[in-house]
Amino acid sequence: MKKHNFSAGPCILPESVLKQASEAILNFDDLNLSLIEISHRSKNVVAVMDEAMALVKELMGLPEGYSVLFLQGGASLEFLMVPYNLMKEGGKAAYLETGTWAKKARQEAEAFGDVTVVGNSSDKNFSYIPKGYEVPADADYFHSTSNNTIYGTQMKSFPKVNCLNVCDMSSDIFSRNLDFSQFDLIYAGAQKNMGPAGTTLVVVKDEILGKTGRKIPTMLDYNTHIAKESMFNTPPVFAIYTSMLTLRWLKENGGIDWIENINNQKAELLYGEIDRNPLFAGTAAVEDRSYMNACFLLNDESAHKESFDNMLKEGGINGLNGHRSVGGYRASMYNALPLSSVEALLEIMRELERKA
Amino acid sequence: MKKHNFSAGPCILPESVLKQASEAILNFDDLNLSLIEISHRSKNVVAVMDEAMALVKELMGLPEGYSVLFLQGGASLEFLMVPYNLMKEGGKAAYLETGTWAKKARQEAEAFGDVTVVGNSSDKNFSYIPKGYEVPADADYFHSTSNNTIYGTQMKSFPKVNCLNVCDMSSDIFSRNLDFSQFDLIYAGAQKNMGPAGTTLVVVKDEILGKTGRKIPTMLDYNTHIAKESMFNTPPVFAIYTSMLTLRWLKENGGIDWIENINNQKAELLYGEIDRNPLFAGTAAVEDRSYMNACFLLNDESAHKESFDNMLKEGGINGLNGHRSVGGYRASMYNALPLSSVEALLEIMRELERKA
Repeated sequence: MKKHNFSAGPCILPESVLKQASEAILNFDDLNLSLIEISHRSKNVVAVMDEAMALVKELMGLPEGYSVLFLQGGASLEFLMVPYNLMKEGGKAAYLETGTWAKKARQEAEAFGDVTVVGNSSDKNFSYIPKGYEVPADADYFHSTSNNTIYGTQMKSFPKVNCLNVCDMSSDIFSRNLDFSQFDLIYAGAQKNMGPAGTTLVVVKDEILGKTGRKIPTMLDYNTHIAKESMFNTPPVFAIYTSMLTLRWLKENGGIDWIENINNQKAELLYGEIDRNPLFAGTAAVEDRSYMNACFLLNDESAHKESFDNMLKEGGINGLNGHRSVGGYRASMYNALPLSSVEALLEIMRELERKA
Repeated sequence: MKKHNFSAGPCILPESVLKQASEAILNFDDLNLSLIEISHRSKNVVAVMDEAMALVKELMGLPEGYSVLFLQGGASLEFLMVPYNLMKEGGKAAYLETGTWAKKARQEAEAFGDVTVVGNSSDKNFSYIPKGYEVPADADYFHSTSNNTIYGTQMKSFPKVNCLNVCDMSSDIFSRNLDFSQFDLIYAGAQKNMGPAGTTLVVVKDEILGKTGRKIPTMLDYNTHIAKESMFNTPPVFAIYTSMLTLRWLKENGGIDWIENINNQKAELLYGEIDRNPLFAGTAAVEDRSYMNACFLLNDESAHKESFDNMLKEGGINGLNGHRSVGGYRASMYNALPLSSVEALLEIMRELERKA
């Protein structure tokens, strides 16, 4: 039976991408060699890297002056690279603390200088996005997290700041159109909307680098990777290839505008049902609800949890368990999740209500 | 036509491994889900990580007290992590400089303290392994590179040292049996004998960590990853799975003793022909010849290069170009390269001699 894959990440990828990735493991570009057993400097692999970089620039509508990198280490290594590359000696940074990952990013920066938390929603288990905060004008940069997978919140707008603007978009990149040029540095682990785990996308404005006075270790210096077009050392070829296929799929179908429209339909359907159905309740503040991850609870777990869990299992619904720090359920609706999977979930929610 | 894949890395992997990896992209463990679209914390993926760690310990015959990690960032990030984790404040390290990568490792350590180069073969373009050097007894650690892919040299023995013993085994790990317990820390990028690019194996003796007095950034601290069994953040699932398959293949066929015997046969055949055939000459010192990468030249390029290159192409020989810093040819004979591929290359070398 085909599953409906609501996994929070690593998450569903387009079926056509999985098919092509699978084929390339056996025979890549009709070379009679596997993608993963040839040199990263062969012209076929260099072409993959070039196409992946070009697709990111095109899909995001980036102006001149940005570099696109495919690195390793996940967002967690970016938590370290951001202050290393952007915080001046004796400098200052401002962090918006909207969840576990935002907090980890802030903690890593504290080894480098003065870190101000400009807003923090931990008082209500990160169930909302702080508003009305001020970013100090003398900060070297402002860091935010656009979407919080665990808590199901998402920033609907970004503050105008008088310093560098840095955003961790790991869990909603390529899901909605933004003016990406308002940011100086964007990073994202691939494993939500872009590809398999194993590579990290970094989009950085070239002119902001090399200005801190710090000596940066080679592998942590964005300029190392810009100079070598992400091939300073052997890149994670398979993860980049599969990301390129996913970006190509997005472009061929109509780009970010196309997927944003579908993502809106999926989220509106599901939140509509959560609000309508008396058995369920959402956990995040309504105005801050994530269109990627919808967190919700059964109002009466003792009465309905067993039936609902059984019905989900019978219906082929995968990955709906909530994160332990929120509980309940979490439906992750990343780009590749079809509308029909949301409809299948809704059908089960309605059926539970009918049986109750 | 089936290729003979002599790529220097990423390199040939066993055909059965490629087949299983390709299938898992479509349907992993009969879950009707792809390996790359499910949670790394699912029991199926945790089982992969556990098996991979256990296979490394078993194949290397490691005693108690070692941890096995699968990280990201390649050997190049280890160049930084090693001094961060092992060099004391105001400490000292000793490096053996046997090639480009050994040099990069040494340069990264210089930001941390006093670095002594105990031996250096750059005077003869790294064509030999220095011998008779002394490692200072007050060094925090000694760092060596067991095999030098670019120059085709390999350490046949390792010095006894009175400090921690660290070895970069990126290009010959699992190819020959050693007393691995003589080392305190071993690291290796996966993309030679273990799997696809995208993960780095680290084997570390637990008791050596946490003793430098340094504050180590979270992602660069081996203890971070030991505590979370390589799942502090999302691991590169595909690269680890495919590495696990390759390790399983090695175990099922007889382990390191089995492959060492085949690797010896391959290397002896090829070096035998290089030495016998008057058209060719090896570049590395005979006693230091690598059994993974054989570098050789045509004695008269103007007379034979065009014919030889055409014959290689017609014979389906892939990846035989030498590195630009040595020139000529380089035959990489990693674990998965069958003896028959070496025989195919020898046939072409003999045919060139007959035609000359």
